[in-house]
Amino acid sequence: MDSVKVGIYGATGYTGCELAMILQRHSQVEITFATSQSHAGKSLRDIFPAAQDLPLIDAGEAEPGSVDVVFLCLPHAASAATAVTALDAGTKVIDLSADFRLQDVGVYEAWYKVTHPAPHLLEEAVYGLTEFARDDLRQTRLVANPGCYTTTALLALAPLMQAQANMAGDIIVDAKSGVSGAGRTPKTNTLFVEVTDNFSPYAIGRAHRHLPEMEQVIGWWHERPPRLIFSPHLLPVPRGILADIYVSGTEAWPEGEIRDLYKAAYDGEQFVDLLPGGELATLAHVTHTNRCVISLTFAGPMLIITSALDNLVKGAAGQAVQNLNAILGWPEELGLV
Amino acid sequence: MDSVKVGIYGATGYTGCELAMILQRHSQVEITFATSQSHAGKSLRDIFPAAQDLPLIDAGEAEPGSVDVVFLCLPHAASAATAVTALDAGTKVIDLSADFRLQDVGVYEAWYKVTHPAPHLLEEAVYGLTEFARDDLRQTRLVANPGCYTTTALLALAPLMQAQANMAGDIIVDAKSGVSGAGRTPKTNTLFVEVTDNFSPYAIGRAHRHLPEMEQVIGWWHERPPRLIFSPHLLPVPRGILADIYVSGTEAWPEGEIRDLYKAAYDGEQFVDLLPGGELATLAHVTHTNRCVISLTFAGPMLIITSALDNLVKGAAGQAVQNLNAILGWPEELGLV
Amino acid sequence: MDSVKVGIYGATGYTGCELAMILQRHSQVEITFATSQSHAGKSLRDIFPAAQDLPLIDAGEAEPGSVDVVFLCLPHAASAATAVTALDAGTKVIDLSADFRLQDVGVYEAWYKVTHPAPHLLEEAVYGLTEFARDDLRQTRLVANPGCYTTTALLALAPLMQAQANMAGDIIVDAKSGVSGAGRTPKTNTLFVEVTDNFSPYAIGRAHRHLPEMEQVIGWWHERPPRLIFSPHLLPVPRGILADIYVSGTEAWPEGEIRDLYKAAYDGEQFVDLLPGGELATLAHVTHTNRCVISLTFAGPMLIITSALDNLVKGAAGQAVQNLNAILGWPEELGLV
Amino acid sequence: MDSVKVGIYGATGYTGCELAMILQRHSQVEITFATSQSHAGKSLRDIFPAAQDLPLIDAGEAEPGSVDVVFLCLPHAASAATAVTALDAGTKVIDLSADFRLQDVGVYEAWYKVTHPAPHLLEEAVYGLTEFARDDLRQTRLVANPGCYTTTALLALAPLMQAQANMAGDIIVDAKSGVSGAGRTPKTNTLFVEVTDNFSPYAIGRAHRHLPEMEQVIGWWHERPPRLIFSPHLLPVPRGILADIYVSGTEAWPEGEIRDLYKAAYDGEQFVDLLPGGELATLAHVTHTNRCVISLTFAGPMLIITSALDNLVKGAAGQAVQNLNAILGWPEELGLV
Repeated sequence: MDSVKVGIYGATGYTGCELAMILQRHSQVEITFATSQSHAGKSLRDIFPAAQDLPLIDAGEAEPGSVDVVFLCLPHAASAATAVTALDAGTKVIDLSADFRLQDVGVYEAWYKVTHPAPHLLEEAVYGLTEFARDDLRQTRLVANPGCYTTTALLALAPLMQAQANMAGDIIVDAKSGVSGAGRTPKTNTLFVEVTDNFSPYAIGRAHRHLPEMEQVIGWWHERPPRLIFSPHLLPVPRGILADIYVSGTEAWPEGEIRDLYKAAYDGEQFVDLLPGGELATLAHVTHTNRCVISLTFAGPMLIITSALDNLVKGAAGQAVQNLNAILGWPEELGLV
Repeated sequence: MDSVKVGIYGATGYTGCELAMILQRHSQVEITFATSQSHAGKSLRDIFPAAQDLPLIDAGEAEPGSVDVVFLCLPHAASAATAVTALDAGTKVIDLSADFRLQDVGVYEAWYKVTHPAPHLLEEAVYGLTEFARDDLRQTRLVANPGCYTTTALLALAPLMQAQANMAGDIIVDAKSGVSGAGRTPKTNTLFVEVTDNFSPYAIGRAHRHLPEMEQVIGWWHERPPRLIFSPHLLPVPRGILADIYVSGTEAWPEGEIRDLYKAAYDGEQFVDLLPGGELATLAHVTHTNRCVISLTFAGPMLIITSALDNLVKGAAGQAVQNLNAILGWPEELGLV
Repeated sequence: MDSVKVGIYGATGYTGCELAMILQRHSQVEITFATSQSHAGKSLRDIFPAAQDLPLIDAGEAEPGSVDVVFLCLPHAASAATAVTALDAGTKVIDLSADFRLQDVGVYEAWYKVTHPAPHLLEEAVYGLTEFARDDLRQTRLVANPGCYTTTALLALAPLMQAQANMAGDIIVDAKSGVSGAGRTPKTNTLFVEVTDNFSPYAIGRAHRHLPEMEQVIGWWHERPPRLIFSPHLLPVPRGILADIYVSGTEAWPEGEIRDLYKAAYDGEQFVDLLPGGELATLAHVTHTNRCVISLTFAGPMLIITSALDNLVKGAAGQAVQNLNAILGWPEELGLV
Repeated sequence: MDSVKVGIYGATGYTGCELAMILQRHSQVEITFATSQSHAGKSLRDIFPAAQDLPLIDAGEAEPGSVDVVFLCLPHAASAATAVTALDAGTKVIDLSADFRLQDVGVYEAWYKVTHPAPHLLEEAVYGLTEFARDDLRQTRLVANPGCYTTTALLALAPLMQAQANMAGDIIVDAKSGVSGAGRTPKTNTLFVEVTDNFSPYAIGRAHRHLPEMEQVIGWWHERPPRLIFSPHLLPVPRGILADIYVSGTEAWPEGEIRDLYKAAYDGEQFVDLLPGGELATLAHVTHTNRCVISLTFAGPMLIITSALDNLVKGAAGQAVQNLNAILGWPEELGLV
C-alpha cells in the first residue's frame, strides 16, 4: 500500500478545513498543496487554530499534475472548471461541489442557474455514496461526492427503496442541520446573534437544491419512485444533520421484515449503524465521526426513519476520504477512526 | 375594571416563574400568595435572579379562599386535588397541568398512569385554547390550560379542520421544543452538556401525552378527523416551539382559498399572526412574547403549516393570563404586551 | 408631561433595533422616522421579526428639524457629522457612538484613527452616565451615551473612586461580553460556528478603545487615579456583559465601610443594585433589563467588584432612553420597566 | 513495548468516559474492566452514544490485582480508599480525584471536610503535572493527577515562578470553565436552561478548592511565593478552560527575557504551546486535544498570561494517559494524537 499525494482546492471553508485535518492524520496520504482564494500566503493554522501547519497557496500556483488525486471544495461551476484541468493533467478528482452530482445537465442548470462548464463529464462521473458505489469507484477518475442532506436521506431510504416498497403519497424529509452547512462566508443569517436561541426553516417543500439530487438517486433504485417533500432547517449547533423521514405505506408496515432489510444492508458496514428498537438517532451519536446512525419507528402504516450524521464528515469530507480509500482499494476506514 | 387577587401554586418551576413574572407586571392583578414545595420561606428572587421579590410559602399554608382565582402549576394528579379544594372554597381555577384537558377519564388514566382525583369535574372544565373558547370562558369556574405542543399544533390546524378539509392519510406534526418544556427538576438528559451541540427526538410516532389531547380537539372540529403522527424533539435553546405540520390533500390545495380561511380566522386576533407568503415562521418571531406565528407553504397536494410560539408564554403562562383576562371580560392583552 | 417626537439614525444594527423596540413601548414617545443605510424602503419588522412595523428611510431623506430629539446609532465620525446637522436644526442629540465621549480631541483621534468632524462640540457634550449626570442632562442639547464596557466598569467603581480610596498598583477589569456588542455587520469572527463552544480574549491589556474612556472618567473622580488594565473577551451568548474588577488596597479593605459607600451611592437608584453579601452578579440578573447589578467580594487587601448589565440595554439603548427621560425631567424609568 | 491491562473506576462521569474513549483508541492498552455505581450491567455506549461498547461492572466486582494500572475517577475520599486496595494488590494507581494532590493532610481536611482515608500515602504520591514530573513518574506507583484549573494555571506560571520573578502584590487567576467541569450528577445549576445565555462567577477570591493546590506547587517553585486570588466562572460551553493570569512586576517586565523563559521551558514540549506575539489563546485552540496553549501580553509592569486547555483532556483524562505513558517509559503522545 503505497502513499499517495493529494491536493486540496479550497482548504479554508469549513469542508476544506475538515478535509485537510482528516488527511493530515491519514497515514498513507501526503498533502502536496492546499489552495485558498482569500488566505494564500498564510498557514491553515492561522485560520483554524485547531489545524496543523499547512501552507496555503493561490489556486493559480497549484500544479494538479504533481499529485495523484485532487479534492475540490470550491463553489459550483468553479469546481467543474478545475476538474477539467486536473483530469487533463492525468489526476483523479473527488469533487465535493454539486457540479457532477446531477446527471441531467438541464436539471443542473435549472437549479444552479449557471451554464455547466463541463457537461461531457457528467456521464462518467461516479456518484460517490460510498456504500452503494464501491465497484464503480474502483474504475473511475471522477467522483461526485454527495450532498450532506442527500447522504442523510439516501442512507436512510436505500434499503426500503431498493426493496421496491409499496408507498402511499409523498415521502417527507424533515431535516435539521448545524450551521457549518451554510458555509464560512460571512452573512447576516449565520451570525451568532441571529442563530443562537433560534430555529428556522428555509426553502421547505420542493425548493432546495438537494431535492433533485435525492429524487435522482431514488429514481435509480425504485421503479415507481414517490415524490419527495424536503424541509431543511437551521439548528443552533455547529455541526450535524438529523432527518426524520416519514414514509406512508399502503398498509401497516411489517416491522420485522423492514428491520431485516436494514440489517441485511448495513450489518457489514462500519460507518452505517442501525440502532436497536427503542433507541432513537441523535446528533450525539455522530458528531466528529464518519458514522451515520439510523433508527426505525413504526406506527401502523407510518414508518419514521430517523437518520443522523455529521455534515462535515460523513456528509462531506469524511465520505470524500472514504471514497479516496475505495478508489485506491484501501480499507475504507483508513484515516477515519 | 376592578383588580383581582390571585394565588399561584407551584411558582418555582419554569412555568410558574414565568407566570409570576407576567402577573407582577399585570396592572389589575395582585398576587396574594405563591407556593413552592422546595423553596418555601425564600423569595422568588432567590431562585430566579430576574424575578422581583415574592415570598414563597408552603402549599399547606395557602388559603385558596382568600383569592379570586388560583393558577395551578403543579404535577398532574396533585393539580386536580388542589383544584377541588379551591373550587370548594369558591375560587376559580386555571389549571396549567394536564388534569382537565382530556374529557375521557379512561384516556387520561391510560396515558398518565394514575387514577384521576376528580373525574366529576371533567365535564365542566373549559379547554382554554383562548381564541376558540371565549364564550365558554366567561361562564366557567375551571379552565384546563392547553399543553404547549398542543397549542402550537391546534392554532395551526384550526381553520383547516373547521372547514372540513379533505385529506389523504395522516397529519404529521414534526415539532421541536426548547428545553424549558422539560421542566426544572434536575435530570441527566436536560443538563447543559447533554443538550448543547445535540438535537434529539423522543417519544415520536404515537407515544407522547400531547397526542391524545391534539386528537381530541381535532375530533371536535372535523367530522372525519385524520390520525395524527406527532414527533417531538429537544432543541438546544431555552424556550420556543416550532412545528412543521404536513397535511396531504386529495388533490392540489387551492392556495388562495386556504390562505383566506386563515385570514378569516386570525385577522382580528392580536396573538395569532399569519405570515405573508414567502416568510416562514421561526422562533425569533415569538420568544418572550404571547404570539403564535403561522406560515403556509404549498407544494401541490402537500400543505406545510409551520407554527411557532414560546412554550412558556403562549404555550403556558401567557395563555393562562389571556384566559384570566377572558374570564373576567377584560381586554385579552392586559399584562401581555 | 407632553409627548415628544424622536428620530433614530441607524435603526437596523443591534443597538438601533433595541432602541426602536424600547421607544415603541414608551408611552410618551412618537418615532417620527428611523433610518437605515442598507434597508431603506423596508420595515424594521422585515429585519427583526420580533419588532413592530416601522418604516425605514434613507438618512438623506430624514428631517431632523421635524423632531425634538434624535438618537444616533451610527459609526463614529458619521455620527458627529449628523449631530452637527441636527443641532443646527435646533434638535437635541443623544449620540450612542463614541464621538463625544472623549473630551480630548487628541486622545479621540489617536484611538479612533480619524479626524474628529466637530471638535468644537466636545466641551458642551454631557457624558451620559445617567446616575452621575442628572443635573447636567437637564441643561444640555448633546449627550454622549457611554460605551457598554465603560458603563459596566464605571458604575462598579464610582463609589470607591469618589471616596478617594487608597490603592496599590493597577485596577484590573477582566470583562466578558456577549456577541451583539460586536455589531451586526457580517464578519467571520462573529459567525455562529466560530463563536459557539469557544471563548476568546481580544485587545487585552491597554489596547481597547473603551480604556481611555474609563480612565478619563476615573480621572474626574479620583485625585490620584490608578492605571487601568482592561481585558475584554467574547462570550458565546447573544447579550450581556460581566466584569470582574480587581482593586488592590494598601491594606485589608474595611468590608463594612466599603459596603456602606455602595449602599449610600445606590440605595435610591432603581437601575443599579448592590447584591447582598454572598450573592454574586451574573448575566441572569440583567439580560433584557436596564439593571446593573454589583457584588463585592473581599479577600484582605483585594477587593473584587463583579458588575453585570445588558450591553444593549443599560449598556446602550436603555441608558439612552434613561437619558432622554432625564433630559425631559420625566421619571427615568418611563418605558424601561 | 508490551501492552498493559488497565481498569477504570468510575467510567460514567464526564472524566471517566473521556478517559475510556481515549484508552479505547490507545494501541498499547487493554481495558480489562470499567466500573460504574449507577450503570453496572450496561455498556458505556448506552450512556454515551459516541463511546464504543464497554461493559460496566459494579466496583465491588472489579479485581484490581488483575491489571497493571488502575485509573480512579471517583469522588474524593472514595478514591483514596480504592487506591489503598489497588496498591495492596500490587497495582499502580493514577488517581484523578483530589485525594493525593495536597501533601499536607491538614490542608486537605480543612478544604475537603473529610478525614483522609490514607494519609500515609501522601508522601509517596507524585504530583502528576507531567511536564514537570517525568523523573518522579518513572519511579512511582501512585500518581495524583492535577486538577483542571490547577493545570491551566500552573503550566502558565511555571517558567516565571521557577525563574524567581520579582512580583508586586497578588497573582490574579481569572478563570472560565466549561460546564463538564461541574460533573454529570444532575443539579439545577448545570441544567441547560440555567447555563445557556448566562455567565456566572462562583467561589471567587480565596474560596475554591483548587486554590491551595495551586499555592502548594507555586510554593515548591518560588522562594517567596506570592498569594493567589482565584476567580472561577461557569461558561456556557461544554468543555474548555481559559484563564487570564495577571502578574504585577516591580518594574516593567522585560518582554524578550520573559518570552525566552517560556520558549526554553516549552519548545521541546508537544502538548504545551507558546503562541507567537499578537496571537491570544482561545478555547478553539484546544478543545478535544491534549494541548495547553499560552499567550503572553505585556503592559509595562503588568504581564497577562492567557492559558487554555480542554478540562476533560489536558485537564484530566488526557494528562492521566500522558502520565501512564510517562510511567511506562513510552512516548508521551501515545493514544493522544
